[in-house]
Amino acid sequence: MDSRPKFWPFIREMLKFDRNRELQQTVSREAIRLVEPRRHVDFLSDVGQFLTSDQISFDEDDRLGHAYGRSFRDVQRLRAGKIDFAPDAVLLPAAHEQVEKIVSAAGKHKVILIPFGGGTNIVGALEPKHADGRMVVSLDLRRMQRLLKLDEHSQIASFEAGVFGPELERLLEERGFALGHEPDSFEFSTLGGWIATRSCGTQSNIYGGIEDMVVSLRVVTPLGTIETKPAPAASNGPDLNRLMCGSEGMFGVITQASLRVHRTPECLDYRIVLFKNFAAGYEALYDCLLHDALPDVVRYSDEMETRLIFAAKHGSHGLKAWFDKPIKAYLKWAGFSAPCVLLVGFEGPAARTLRLRNAALRILKRHGGFDTGQGPGRQWRKSRFDVPWLRDYMMDYGVIGDSMETAAVWSNVRPLYESVRAELSDAIQSVTGYAGYVGCHLSHLYKTGACIYFTIAARGRENDGPLELLGYYEKIKARGTEAIMRGGGVLSHHHAVGYEHRPWLPRELSPAALAALRAVKSRLDPENIMNPTAFLVEEAEADLRSR
Amino acid sequence: MDSRPKFWPFIREMLKFDRNRELQQTVSREAIRLVEPRRHVDFLSDVGQFLTSDQISFDEDDRLGHAYGRSFRDVQRLRAGKIDFAPDAVLLPAAHEQVEKIVSAAGKHKVILIPFGGGTNIVGALEPKHADGRMVVSLDLRRMQRLLKLDEHSQIASFEAGVFGPELERLLEERGFALGHEPDSFEFSTLGGWIATRSCGTQSNIYGGIEDMVVSLRVVTPLGTIETKPAPAASNGPDLNRLMCGSEGMFGVITQASLRVHRTPECLDYRIVLFKNFAAGYEALYDCLLHDALPDVVRYSDEMETRLIFAAKHGSHGLKAWFDKPIKAYLKWAGFSAPCVLLVGFEGPAARTLRLRNAALRILKRHGGFDTGQGPGRQWRKSRFDVPWLRDYMMDYGVIGDSMETAAVWSNVRPLYESVRAELSDAIQSVTGYAGYVGCHLSHLYKTGACIYFTIAARGRENDGPLELLGYYEKIKARGTEAIMRGGGVLSHHHAVGYEHRPWLPRELSPAALAALRAVKSRLDPENIMNPTAFLVEEAEADLRSR
Repeated sequence: MDSRPKFWPFIREMLKFDRNRELQQTVSREAIRLVEPRRHVDFLSDVGQFLTSDQISFDEDDRLGHAYGRSFRDVQRLRAGKIDFAPDAVLLPAAHEQVEKIVSAAGKHKVILIPFGGGTNIVGALEPKHADGRMVVSLDLRRMQRLLKLDEHSQIASFEAGVFGPELERLLEERGFALGHEPDSFEFSTLGGWIATRSCGTQSNIYGGIEDMVVSLRVVTPLGTIETKPAPAASNGPDLNRLMCGSEGMFGVITQASLRVHRTPECLDYRIVLFKNFAAGYEALYDCLLHDALPDVVRYSDEMETRLIFAAKHGSHGLKAWFDKPIKAYLKWAGFSAPCVLLVGFEGPAARTLRLRNAALRILKRHGGFDTGQGPGRQWRKSRFDVPWLRDYMMDYGVIGDSMETAAVWSNVRPLYESVRAELSDAIQSVTGYAGYVGCHLSHLYKTGACIYFTIAARGRENDGPLELLGYYEKIKARGTEAIMRGGGVLSHHHAVGYEHRPWLPRELSPAALAALRAVKSRLDPENIMNPTAFLVEEAEADLRSR
Repeated sequence: MDSRPKFWPFIREMLKFDRNRELQQTVSREAIRLVEPRRHVDFLSDVGQFLTSDQISFDEDDRLGHAYGRSFRDVQRLRAGKIDFAPDAVLLPAAHEQVEKIVSAAGKHKVILIPFGGGTNIVGALEPKHADGRMVVSLDLRRMQRLLKLDEHSQIASFEAGVFGPELERLLEERGFALGHEPDSFEFSTLGGWIATRSCGTQSNIYGGIEDMVVSLRVVTPLGTIETKPAPAASNGPDLNRLMCGSEGMFGVITQASLRVHRTPECLDYRIVLFKNFAAGYEALYDCLLHDALPDVVRYSDEMETRLIFAAKHGSHGLKAWFDKPIKAYLKWAGFSAPCVLLVGFEGPAARTLRLRNAALRILKRHGGFDTGQGPGRQWRKSRFDVPWLRDYMMDYGVIGDSMETAAVWSNVRPLYESVRAELSDAIQSVTGYAGYVGCHLSHLYKTGACIYFTIAARGRENDGPLELLGYYEKIKARGTEAIMRGGGVLSHHHAVGYEHRPWLPRELSPAALAALRAVKSRLDPENIMNPTAFLVEEAEADLRSR
């Protein structure tokens, strides 16, 4: 972080810290002791038949590493040494057939299974809220990372679901292909996790969300394995792939998936375009949309987020590398005093991509966009997965950092942007007693609307510990989510439901719709062994945040 | 049909008719008498509270008109006067709230409801196979055709589900918008029917199938109305819109839908390109795909279907209008003796569309495509909904005519094309004793595969009546479907399941998947009033084709 010399000063100014950085006290690993794990002897004897000893772990570090995801709440609790729930064991199956046997044994013995990919979930989808005395197993798929088949002519790759983002792209790249699904968690998240949460990657404008990429699935449910037929489209009843996308571990374990892939892009053109204000860039992007000239990647930051981006640049490649001084002076003179950064990316076959790029840039310039060229775009690509690190860095110094996102139809994008931003600013002020930082970007653009992504930073009062900050966070998050719901946004565009969003679910989905999903759950999982306290848990059973 | 002078001679030659056309005997309307309808007095009293007398019909013509869809089986049975099942009454609700009340009354009195749109279904999704003595009501949505809202900025239009294709497009066109969903049944089918069957229109390459267009839905289920939130995308659990697409009337009544629409295309460029053989055009299209230059509309006919197309042309605009004699001579000289017709269409904003057209045509020409220009393309557009009429015309003269379709991943498209074609030819010969016609086209192209659409024509033996022909049809259709299943194609790409495809469903979907869908059905519809014998009916209850 020392390579980003402007970052802390920016945070300090924003949050009105009148002191220097002070590392927040955290509990040492040694101070954390988990309760002895429950060991269901018959279950362990059953899985011991086909798992080797290195596939079954009761190790405390392993259990701790599988207790939480990576939400602000999760990280803060870890730092405070507050372990609400850790699995009793971690199982590491190495093949689809082993998962089938584990699920079968778990059903027989009513052992709870929590499918675990990269553990980057930030909505609490990995943590059983209670276990009724049952043994809880974290089912970690990290040993299932194989590329099973690449059908080059059909542009379909079949993977085991435990494969991590970088490994998946590496295996494809060796063969001249790519998937193009890069959520912010890319480096540490897995294919199975992407599917279970209906995840969406940076390049969704061109490649779609993960649900658009799934051609077929294998899902091990307690009732049996569901295997869908690989097809580009079908009219054979409701789409079962889509029923599994967003199931958050409740219906079964996604073990394999066939995905639509594409040839390694011949041409990659990422660049930064600046706008004088948020409205100008919004109009420009909307105009691209109307002319079927939407860039393949769009991330459009408002004035505040743009300031954060500039502040977070590496010293050696920072603002200075982006624009030499004369350009900076020119920009100021030309009215770009509080600019908005638009990242656009174009990728694919050369001819098509250059045609699209030229068409889009023409429109962006017509709306006053200042194209800073590919250099800054390349810088962005290099650091595109850094955002979570910035949050953790801020947390080191006792700053609350979080993101919230929603999606809305176009006519509601700007109203929601304004109302949620105002609500978050107000919430931060009234909850913590200090002004905070609220930034926003639009990304994942569709014909009918867009994702609106907010980032916040807030400070606590003097001497607040992690749990006090967590209390503030909960209140701010709740008020932001209320504002999203009031304004007609969806509960989440790509972070999933989990227990963080569960309280709003009855307002998000019709009662009959919830009942239908619960019917699927009980039919596929009659013993309720699969992630049983996830978002479909009945209201009465829900023990939301209140233990 | 007299305007298509070459059509009958072509059929006659193909099917080796050695006689002139002879109209098949059909039963007169007067000879058909339906059994007296069951009238559930309490149900009728309940719905009489809010429906006017012209919204409840027991009229025999109405009942007959709602007994069947438009499959070969349906039309043939009608012509033979064989009415296996007619609803007892037809109800014509005029608003969502009336549908809610009807569904509620039906649930209370265990009256069966069959949602009815345009009645063009060809897989038997409209016909209850048995009713257990219960009253059966056809719920016809034709009085619900309003455009409820057009959100121009979001490009979203909300319609009542009973709106027919032409009316929907007319209402949008008045406001400068279009949907772009044109299945062959377009003129006579409704929005609700499209959604219930996961229908796909000609321009699916650019606009997607109906499931890609649905932004939100209102579905009246016996458990309550499911209303989904309009959003471009979401991660709020499994996608409920998709759960309703393909539900074939079993989960509830789709009353309203919000759809992604677009500005009326500035530019429409449809043209016919000829290829010397099927392989050449296939390679050309695949090359377009790899270069992201896939035309917005593709319908690529094999040699046999091309002959049918030429034969079916109107005399005044026929081959003669397409190509004047010198061009014809040139084509023959140039090796196009048995050409394959590729229809390509480009539509959208002018700049983007011309760019795409030029890129695609360049590739098609590189593969030997001969561009005959927009004239023939315009002719195709004028007659694009004629195919069902040709079938009915053939049926007038005792010819079996039908279509079957599937979708497959690219590496399986040509193998399936060959194997199903061979199987259908062989089936026609061995079942009827005569050679038949088997043509095919590829349409609805995706990055990962395509729809493969077969049309067949076959004759019967001398003096065969409608029911004998129906018997042949069943055997041929079964062998074709078997070949599709053996070859790994999906059961249907866009015709849905119904009872025609139901026997193969247990091989199409995993048992646990079927169980999950049935669980949704029983939860939403505990009294089993919604289209109860549709494809999710339990095996034991299924009375397949055997009454």
